Amino acid sequence: ADVQKKIAPWRLSVQEQEPQLMAQQRAVRLGKLTNALVVVASLIDKPTNLGLCRTCEIFGASALVLDSLRHVSDKQFQALSVSSELWLPLLEVKPSELTDFLQLKKREGYCIVGVEQTANSQSLQDYSFPEKTLLLLNEREGIDVNLLQLLDVCVEIPQQGVTRSLNVHVSAALLVWEYTRQHLGSAQEA
Amino acid sequence: ADVQKKIAPWRLSVQEQEPQLMAQQRAVRLGKLTNALVVVASLIDKPTNLGLCRTCEIFGASALVLDSLRHVSDKQFQALSVSSELWLPLLEVKPSELTDFLQLKKREGYCIVGVEQTANSQSLQDYSFPEKTLLLLNEREGIDVNLLQLLDVCVEIPQQGVTRSLNVHVSAALLVWEYTRQHLGSAQEA
Repeated sequence: ADVQKKIAPWRLSVQEQEPQLMAQQRAVRLGKLTNALVVVASLIDKPTNLGLCRTCEIFGASALVLDSLRHVSDKQFQALSVSSELWLPLLEVKPSELTDFLQLKKREGYCIVGVEQTANSQSLQDYSFPEKTLLLLNEREGIDVNLLQLLDVCVEIPQQGVTRSLNVHVSAALLVWEYTRQHLGSAQEA
Repeated sequence: ADVQKKIAPWRLSVQEQEPQLMAQQRAVRLGKLTNALVVVASLIDKPTNLGLCRTCEIFGASALVLDSLRHVSDKQFQALSVSSELWLPLLEVKPSELTDFLQLKKREGYCIVGVEQTANSQSLQDYSFPEKTLLLLNEREGIDVNLLQLLDVCVEIPQQGVTRSLNVHVSAALLVWEYTRQHLGSAQEA
C-alpha cells in the first residue's frame, strides 16, 4: 500500500486519460485487439531513439514509459513520432522510480523482460511472450543489478555479424514485432 | 550481355573485394551461416535511415546496396554504422540503374521483394522468404511503376495503430529479422 501511494504521481498520458482505457478506446475504434504490452524506455538517453513511440503505437502497445514527458514537446521527438504520441498512452517513470514501478507491474501479473545478453538469456528465436509483458530497454551499459534481479527473463537477439549490438530502437522494434506476431497468430487461430 | 556490360561499373565494397567472397570469409571466420539476402537502400533519402548498415551487418546480410558509396565518408553515417560498413559488402547502384540491377538479380535467381502496402501484398506474418531474397526498400512515396513490375512479391507489415507507417529502417529491420529467423530455424532443424 505504501508503494502504491508512492507511485501515485506517475503522470498519465498527455491526454490525461487512464492509459488502459485509452488503449481500449483506440482498439474499439479501429476494430483491433489491444496488446497488454508495456514498453519501458526510461533508461534510453538518446532522444533519436524515442522514434520508438511511432513503432509502439503502430503495433498497438498499451503504453510507452519515458523518463520524462517533457520529451513530447521536443521538436525532434515530434518529427520522429509523427503524431503517434497522440494515440499511445505515455507514462513518466524516472530511472530512480523504476524499481517501484517494476514491482507494481509484477504484482499486476506482468512478466518483466529485459533485453540483454547474459549467460541465462533466452534467444528471441525461441522465446514465447506471455500476454502481459513489460519490456525493459536499456542503452549502452547493462541493466543495473538492482533492476536485473527484478527481471523474470532476459531475451537476446541472435546476431551473426561482427558489430557489437543493434541500435536500441531496432532491438525494441524486433521484440515488439515478435510479441505482436505471436499474439496475432494466436488470435487468428482462436 | 548488353545489360551485363552496362552494369559492370557497380563499384564493389569499400574494401574492393568481391562481396560474395567477403561475406563468406566473414562467415567462415565467425563460424556462422551466410545469408543470401541483398538489401537495396538506393531509394532511401534520409541519411539517418542508413543506420540500416549496422542492422544488415549484424544479421549477416550478403550485401547492402546504396545510391552512392559517398555516404560511407559522412560523419553521421559513420556514427550510426559504428564500423559495421567494414564488415558488410556495400554496392553502389543509383536509382536510375535499379531496373537493370533488379533484372540482373532476377536472372541470378533472386526473389525481388518490395516492402509496400498494395492490394496484393502478403502479410509479413505469413510470408516465407526464399533463400535468395532481394529486399527493395523505399521511403515516403510508393515504388515507381517501372520497378513495381519487376517485383516478385510485395510484403506488408501488419499494423494495429493509427500512425501511417513505420520508419523505413525499422521496416527493413523487421524483414531482415524475419528472413533470418526463418533461415536460422531451418538451419537448426537441418
